[in-house]
Amino acid sequence: MESKTKHYYIDSSINTRGFGSQKIARIAFYMKVTMSAPGKIALFGEHAVVWGQPAIVSAIDRRVHVTVEGRTDSMIKISAMDLHVPGVVLTFQEGNKAPVIETDYGRIVNAVAYVRKAIDVCRKHLSLSADKGANVTIHSEMPVGAGLGTSAAVSVATLAAYTRLMGHELRPEELARLGHITELEVQGAASPMDTAITTHGGILYIRPTKPDPYIETVGVPVALPAIIGYTERESSTAEMLRRVKDLRNSNPRVIDSIMSSIGEVVESAKAALISGDLFTVGKLMNINHGLLESLGVSSKRLNDMVYSTRFAGAIGSKITGAGGGGCIIALCPGKEAEVSTAIRIAGGMPIQSRLSKTGLKLESLEQ
Amino acid sequence: MESKTKHYYIDSSINTRGFGSQKIARIAFYMKVTMSAPGKIALFGEHAVVWGQPAIVSAIDRRVHVTVEGRTDSMIKISAMDLHVPGVVLTFQEGNKAPVIETDYGRIVNAVAYVRKAIDVCRKHLSLSADKGANVTIHSEMPVGAGLGTSAAVSVATLAAYTRLMGHELRPEELARLGHITELEVQGAASPMDTAITTHGGILYIRPTKPDPYIETVGVPVALPAIIGYTERESSTAEMLRRVKDLRNSNPRVIDSIMSSIGEVVESAKAALISGDLFTVGKLMNINHGLLESLGVSSKRLNDMVYSTRFAGAIGSKITGAGGGGCIIALCPGKEAEVSTAIRIAGGMPIQSRLSKTGLKLESLEQ
Repeated sequence: MESKTKHYYIDSSINTRGFGSQKIARIAFYMKVTMSAPGKIALFGEHAVVWGQPAIVSAIDRRVHVTVEGRTDSMIKISAMDLHVPGVVLTFQEGNKAPVIETDYGRIVNAVAYVRKAIDVCRKHLSLSADKGANVTIHSEMPVGAGLGTSAAVSVATLAAYTRLMGHELRPEELARLGHITELEVQGAASPMDTAITTHGGILYIRPTKPDPYIETVGVPVALPAIIGYTERESSTAEMLRRVKDLRNSNPRVIDSIMSSIGEVVESAKAALISGDLFTVGKLMNINHGLLESLGVSSKRLNDMVYSTRFAGAIGSKITGAGGGGCIIALCPGKEAEVSTAIRIAGGMPIQSRLSKTGLKLESLEQ
Repeated sequence: MESKTKHYYIDSSINTRGFGSQKIARIAFYMKVTMSAPGKIALFGEHAVVWGQPAIVSAIDRRVHVTVEGRTDSMIKISAMDLHVPGVVLTFQEGNKAPVIETDYGRIVNAVAYVRKAIDVCRKHLSLSADKGANVTIHSEMPVGAGLGTSAAVSVATLAAYTRLMGHELRPEELARLGHITELEVQGAASPMDTAITTHGGILYIRPTKPDPYIETVGVPVALPAIIGYTERESSTAEMLRRVKDLRNSNPRVIDSIMSSIGEVVESAKAALISGDLFTVGKLMNINHGLLESLGVSSKRLNDMVYSTRFAGAIGSKITGAGGGGCIIALCPGKEAEVSTAIRIAGGMPIQSRLSKTGLKLESLEQ
């Protein structure tokens, strides 16, 4: 992977030390771990899951790869590549929480924040000292900040890779939990569903019980041919979660009732998925879209994509993820080409992607 | 009014009898009653009110006028004018339920059906014989079938006028109830709210208790500057009610929960209206719109108008009425001009209208 990605060294202090050319040689002396984790789409229940309701999510076959290699010093160097914006390298030093070089690449800085926090969470959990640095390289096959769960994938893959590098191996449930803590600390509020799905893969029904969420694999007897429509985010996930929280706090009875309605949609959808009743799944997606609309997380662009895909033959279409721009998911057996075209006409980008069974995966381990 | 409207005599049998020129003279011999009733907008709770939830509706200053005059024979002649489609005259004779001349004017025939049924309901209620015919003239200041409650206004005004013609006078509550029965018999399902608001006027909170709905006037201490956006209906009210019923019957738990959520919105909105908190009223309108979207009664055109008016400065915007095309209502203090423009840009027609206190009204009574 290293040879295929292009580095943009922003931290000149690293360049002057000549790490760029000597890195390959150093690998022989230090362990290097690459973990990958899938993106996800929320089929049902996003937002409401933050408020105690169940949700159904599916992994997709677009993944985030995180490579962690040891360093002799305490420095943490983070390189983010192929994140659909120019790559960037940031360097942190202990006792200096802000990146050495600030950039305008808001989303990348955001992705980097998850790496940084994941390493902190990992060190705290394993009682590791902060004197062992690492080079972390992130590579993504999907747009960052699109609501496809890149931040959860980055968090969990980083946790898994860093843990391995430090000679530990945690259970998947533990990694998912620590990933959720990472997201919570970066975002303020977070759903446990993103970190669970990126860890386990497949289609999961999740109920956010305490202390750990109840997770159940949903076996679907038929294929779920779906197209994702992506449009640029207007607001971040954190912003959307905060808006829903504000709306909820100013109208608790109304919003709690809507959250319960979403919970009912999820329960019905679980039964429809298990019985392979795609038509009902589609109808419930449309209902769930309206409920998300009522929470104020839709936008004109998202609605245009949702309606266009329905016109084009999708049997169900809804926002997937936090909303405020981002992605829609259209269930469209036999109409994939028409629905892709409809998404382009509505100003979005269709993302070819299949639902995937593969969760967190060890890609390579070098001594 | 007679002199201002243009008649299109389709029933040639009437023309050959020469009624066209002799009608004015005949008025002197028969009593003639003109009643008017206002259109309405649903501020909150449409659809859910059919399923037992409360709703809030407001009368508007666009009205339907119904003139009823006695005949010496048993014939009922219905003339519909100014219904934003060419006028039409249909003649019914006892024992012959279908109109003598069939036309393609689906909406007019629909309006005519309410007149016909209202007279039947009235005769049955007052145990009147069917041998007293009448000429009924309908004149509307708003588009028919736009969700502004023309059918309820036609039903109630016809009931009131025909009752008076027959020498009876019913209480407003009784007229509203008979109007609801009329709508139920024509449509199969109907909300009691349209007939209640057109009878009483003002802003009403309605809970559909049995046998009679609980009705309460909502006093609002501030003006509610609103613009109605109209787009042609794609589906009738009856069709939209049936679709929601089908959706409900196939997913009772989900849809009942959404109906309860709408009920919560209505209760919160009532409190916000009474306290004059327009900002909260607007937010609740947006929430209610999403819940209607989840019931599948929105359309791309309606959503375009809703989003455009929000961009233009509306503090709340939603479908009003049955959906499937029809009208939206945007609450837009200080932004009326911008919101009207936004509605035009989105392909709709802004309807200048004020919320009105005036309900059913006797316009004229001639002996």
